[in-house]
Amino acid sequence: MSKEESGAVTLEQIVSLCKRRGLIFPGSEIYGGLAGTFDYGPLGLALKKNIENLWWRMFVDMRDDMYGIDAAILMNPKAWEASGHVSGFSDPLIECSNCKNRFRADHLEDSNVCPSCGKTGTLGAPRQFNMMFATKAGASEDDSATVYLRPETAGGMFVNFKNIVDSFHPKLPFGMAQIGKAFRNEIAPREFLFRVRELEQMEIEYFVSEQDWEAAFEAWRSGMHAYAKALGLPTDQLHELNVEAEDLAHYSKRTIDFEFDYPFGRRELWGLAYRTDFDLGAHQSGSGQKLEYLNEETGEKFLPHVIESSFGVGRTLLAVLASAYREDELGGEKRVYLALDPKVAPIKAMVSPLLKNKPELVEKAKDIRTELQKVHPAIAWDDNGNIGKRYRRQDEIGTPFCITIDFDTLGETPELKDTVTLRHRDTGDQERVSIAEAAGRIRQAIS
Amino acid sequence: MSKEESGAVTLEQIVSLCKRRGLIFPGSEIYGGLAGTFDYGPLGLALKKNIENLWWRMFVDMRDDMYGIDAAILMNPKAWEASGHVSGFSDPLIECSNCKNRFRADHLEDSNVCPSCGKTGTLGAPRQFNMMFATKAGASEDDSATVYLRPETAGGMFVNFKNIVDSFHPKLPFGMAQIGKAFRNEIAPREFLFRVRELEQMEIEYFVSEQDWEAAFEAWRSGMHAYAKALGLPTDQLHELNVEAEDLAHYSKRTIDFEFDYPFGRRELWGLAYRTDFDLGAHQSGSGQKLEYLNEETGEKFLPHVIESSFGVGRTLLAVLASAYREDELGGEKRVYLALDPKVAPIKAMVSPLLKNKPELVEKAKDIRTELQKVHPAIAWDDNGNIGKRYRRQDEIGTPFCITIDFDTLGETPELKDTVTLRHRDTGDQERVSIAEAAGRIRQAIS
Repeated sequence: MSKEESGAVTLEQIVSLCKRRGLIFPGSEIYGGLAGTFDYGPLGLALKKNIENLWWRMFVDMRDDMYGIDAAILMNPKAWEASGHVSGFSDPLIECSNCKNRFRADHLEDSNVCPSCGKTGTLGAPRQFNMMFATKAGASEDDSATVYLRPETAGGMFVNFKNIVDSFHPKLPFGMAQIGKAFRNEIAPREFLFRVRELEQMEIEYFVSEQDWEAAFEAWRSGMHAYAKALGLPTDQLHELNVEAEDLAHYSKRTIDFEFDYPFGRRELWGLAYRTDFDLGAHQSGSGQKLEYLNEETGEKFLPHVIESSFGVGRTLLAVLASAYREDELGGEKRVYLALDPKVAPIKAMVSPLLKNKPELVEKAKDIRTELQKVHPAIAWDDNGNIGKRYRRQDEIGTPFCITIDFDTLGETPELKDTVTLRHRDTGDQERVSIAEAAGRIRQAIS
Repeated sequence: MSKEESGAVTLEQIVSLCKRRGLIFPGSEIYGGLAGTFDYGPLGLALKKNIENLWWRMFVDMRDDMYGIDAAILMNPKAWEASGHVSGFSDPLIECSNCKNRFRADHLEDSNVCPSCGKTGTLGAPRQFNMMFATKAGASEDDSATVYLRPETAGGMFVNFKNIVDSFHPKLPFGMAQIGKAFRNEIAPREFLFRVRELEQMEIEYFVSEQDWEAAFEAWRSGMHAYAKALGLPTDQLHELNVEAEDLAHYSKRTIDFEFDYPFGRRELWGLAYRTDFDLGAHQSGSGQKLEYLNEETGEKFLPHVIESSFGVGRTLLAVLASAYREDELGGEKRVYLALDPKVAPIKAMVSPLLKNKPELVEKAKDIRTELQKVHPAIAWDDNGNIGKRYRRQDEIGTPFCITIDFDTLGETPELKDTVTLRHRDTGDQERVSIAEAAGRIRQAIS
């Protein structure tokens, strides 16, 4: 039964697989959890790192016009006053006087009937609720300063714009990039990794002269599609939504939402926005520091304009999982597998001796594993249970290759000496290849 | 003038280099900063990632008994009640009634005289000051829950102990590892990266049967020295301090502080502690969830004991920088360079055409750089100014190799075709090698 035959994957299936196989757990689970937080286990962390490293390599390492930074989560509150977050980063909130549940006013379909308890006339007036987490820094309650956990990583880049210019003297256009945590006190965290209170972002601020914004915007649009392709996201599940002029934020002249068909509907995955010189202008006013860029050839000084591309890591990971989830039947048995691109798969290959109680097989298999770990460290070992069960366990976590060492590998059939069984995840097909060939296949698949 | 001749490096020299060359900036600098926070620029971030990746590879990737996780920073507050942090993670604080400055009571040499304004009899009684940052999660001020930013990454591992056991069925001994941010509302952040409010930790909780604790403790002690060696930290600046029985935390039966000779004195760098079954016991009581481990062979159930090794990333990075900082004289000119181990150096090599206005040189140099980026992406390009200045710029950020392409590379002297000048950072020595040889030297130095 293919995925198409069995119907689309549900969010519950993904959540269950993530928990069962150690990808992602609810945060603080033994204490009953903490809404909107998740803890990544070994395989989820490996998947997340692969998604982030692919992004960093494509958009930072392999370019000469990008400056990666890692700014602090706690920032001087004046930065969030200048950016408008203190006054404006808020959701309108409505409470039901009967059941005490709260709802986002802009999500309510009927402002007369409580969607939770069903009573009419119990919903109050909307109140603005700032989504930034506040805390106090300093030695006592009385005189300490209120600071905020950053609600987005972008701010950390704008406040370091001058540092990058002063230290590296980059020529326009150039960009800054950052991967890091951000925090939003969401009223109703939901849909697993989709709407959370502690999130991870990958963001790029690309600085250009005003007249160059359209070309840069198009280049980043292409870049985002190239990244989607590298991740293995199916193009037919990814959609561009051109935000209409009347819906644009006041500072933006063009925005594209990249939307993805999640199990729970089409939702925003990534964003691309031309933000004019709004951000640098706001921080220049707020800080009193000149943030102008000097064109050394013309002597011209001006505030660069910016193209921002913004990627939620959790949303990306959820899209990767949802699009890779498959159920089929193999050898007469149902199976679940993740058709992950080998570049993002947590484990690249599993090595296994056919029998665990034959020391010569085990020893040879260990040697081969060590050899393959020179290609990539994420080569798993499994000698537990029969070989079919080992394959299924790897299928479920998306391992593209399984390599089995048997007596022929040791030379029992002389012409098969130093060959192994290479088994492919998606088809279950097996072939006999040399050890060097197996290493080459892994290398090719992940590069 | 060698480092020895010029005297030890000062903290000011390191801070200045970090700012000037884009390694590390004060947090929110354009807004006057935020005490105890720092922002990493491109080169500081690369150095930090190399330090972390080396740790992760040595202690997680290349072992089969380690489970890496990435838990949320916001945790259910009950976890910190159970661990004792809510009641006990505090410093005694004393205020001067004259100058209003506050001091840690345990740091005051004379409790009668204010060390700031010098007045006598103005210091008040000590007050306990909890160092955890608190915030509110939830939809309104009234009923939202107080949650804490984790003060250490360890807690995220203990609360996931059961998840790891249930998903992976590891056999004892096994460990959990995590790299992530932690937050401490230090009364007096100081000494650059040494005492900060937002820090990054690398921690390992290694679970053993009680009778095996001493062997595991010794193994981790060796592992920590091996890591110090891999980082290039000089053994004569690293010291073990065996914490005396009367100074041990109540749950610890043995603790070693690894201390380092920083420019500002000998201070704690890393910690190694045998913590008995205190942590799992506390979380078992606090959560009401059974955290016992079942030995499937004997049927025995028990709480594993734990060896914790804890590494501050910022303190490690500062030790690496301080021990690598050198001043000498080369070619009649003073220079500053960082004698970083190539494994941790932010840039592995710089490639440069001898002249920037000769297209054939530039093209060849670019081809060679692309070739070398297959060895490692961090191969810089510099064609700015004269070649001596380019070398000095790389020296200052610790780039181990510079590779210069000239007309001989293009075949002007036929027997030198496809050879380059390979220049060594520490000595300034230059040699003529083939392109393949240059690639091999880089590969060897970083592996």
